[in-house]
Amino acid sequence: MEINYSELVSIKHVNVQRIDGNEISSFLDTLSVEEPLEIRLSYGSDSERIQKNISVTMRTPGNDIDLAIGFLFTEGIITSFEDVQDAYPLKTNCVSQKQNIVQVDLKESFSPNLMQTDRNFYTTSSCGVCGKSSIQSIKTVSPFSNLVRPKIAIDASVFYKLPEKLRIAQSDFESTGGLHASGLFNSQGDLILLTEDVGRHNALDKLIGRSLINQSLPLNEHILLLSGRASFELIQKAAMAGISIIASIGAPSSLAVELAAEFNITLLGFLKDNRLNIYNSSNQTVIVTQ
Amino acid sequence: MEINYSELVSIKHVNVQRIDGNEISSFLDTLSVEEPLEIRLSYGSDSERIQKNISVTMRTPGNDIDLAIGFLFTEGIITSFEDVQDAYPLKTNCVSQKQNIVQVDLKESFSPNLMQTDRNFYTTSSCGVCGKSSIQSIKTVSPFSNLVRPKIAIDASVFYKLPEKLRIAQSDFESTGGLHASGLFNSQGDLILLTEDVGRHNALDKLIGRSLINQSLPLNEHILLLSGRASFELIQKAAMAGISIIASIGAPSSLAVELAAEFNITLLGFLKDNRLNIYNSSNQTVIVTQ
Repeated sequence: MEINYSELVSIKHVNVQRIDGNEISSFLDTLSVEEPLEIRLSYGSDSERIQKNISVTMRTPGNDIDLAIGFLFTEGIITSFEDVQDAYPLKTNCVSQKQNIVQVDLKESFSPNLMQTDRNFYTTSSCGVCGKSSIQSIKTVSPFSNLVRPKIAIDASVFYKLPEKLRIAQSDFESTGGLHASGLFNSQGDLILLTEDVGRHNALDKLIGRSLINQSLPLNEHILLLSGRASFELIQKAAMAGISIIASIGAPSSLAVELAAEFNITLLGFLKDNRLNIYNSSNQTVIVTQ
Repeated sequence: MEINYSELVSIKHVNVQRIDGNEISSFLDTLSVEEPLEIRLSYGSDSERIQKNISVTMRTPGNDIDLAIGFLFTEGIITSFEDVQDAYPLKTNCVSQKQNIVQVDLKESFSPNLMQTDRNFYTTSSCGVCGKSSIQSIKTVSPFSNLVRPKIAIDASVFYKLPEKLRIAQSDFESTGGLHASGLFNSQGDLILLTEDVGRHNALDKLIGRSLINQSLPLNEHILLLSGRASFELIQKAAMAGISIIASIGAPSSLAVELAAEFNITLLGFLKDNRLNIYNSSNQTVIVTQ
């Protein structure tokens, strides 16, 4: 299957008034584009295909197919890119000619797991919803939860350099200040893939979707850098992709730390150019200081 | 109806290793708690009550009833607090004794608008999903879209002081660095209400829910301050509450600016202690410079 990435508009120029102290001026500012994306799934036998609207997410246009594939994978709906027959932007009669639907056709032989789309993912009969039951249910759907991973030693100074590398690569970020980024680095600290979006979940889904399409999962010898905070849902998505080292520039939440511990993921927070906090330490990662 | 706010745990202490240059130390860090909250709705005639799981959101425990009521209102499912018979945390058999379900019982006489919960909110037959159709559909459900508002003049210096006021009030933010905030100010710049959450949508839903319960909607003579970026969904929620002046510390998205223009909302971005950008200017708000 060949992916066709169409040209989509991801930034927009607008005239803005600035007040600086008491001085008023005008300038041309650059905004990140935000538009809804609908992900549609088609599955079932050739004689009885079922169409289902899976999700509408507010995203920055660009790499929509990566986003759709990544979303379906990190939500546990598909388990491999092999499940996908075809994925393409759906043409509509929209007067503004926007491409805001991605259609994903699954192979006839594959039955998607649509349990989560019924919004009961976190619910158990005894507990209602709680973090613990959510973590357990992720374990059951993650293809890499029992992965045996190589032991990796990484110098702390490798981590210190990542935020600056991400900033330099984020040319869009420089101009709009409005995009979240996910960066994938190898264990030497070289940037392999950068994805951006107004939604931080989308940036990560784009990164994982692209990696799935490129057949590079699990990402268990890599470092994932998150431009913002580390929430439960970001760690969940990373865990689905077998990512075992996550560094975030902001703070993690309580449940993000618990999930990282349960999945044996090294989770670093408040990463700066000479400092980091270790919120969870995987027994397969050693952070070396001189 | 009397609201019972139970004591919930919103921060958690964990032992963390810090690496500073090459120095390793340990300290007790404070994390923001993140736990799922399920919002359950009960509606219909007394003889035939219907129970429906409306949403699961990852939130910081605290003011859960405000959050649930705010969510139902900003999503257009209820139109006033008068529609609500009762709202309370649901007891479960959870061993960890977490309160992660809020049940909202609607009055028998009220039929909730559940169109949006079917995930087709943004979809039209001609366009599929697009920002323009989304904005139109919000107009049809917003109770305050045709509000006649008083003309307000606010000195730029009033805005400049808001971020610092928010930071001072955000005592939790100081300790965890992990919470988004929404602040409601009057037009003199006095802080009236501050809400916090790991999710920025939740912080705003808590603010609007509390205001709805206090019968102070529409908030058309107030300033809403957002601690982060201004996305479409935040402006949508603010528009539902009749908020006409929004200032954000970060950048707005393209669709946030379009929605603000459509709803005649003044939208400021990159607000600092001596500077701001005007992304949309309502004809009812004048920003005064000396």
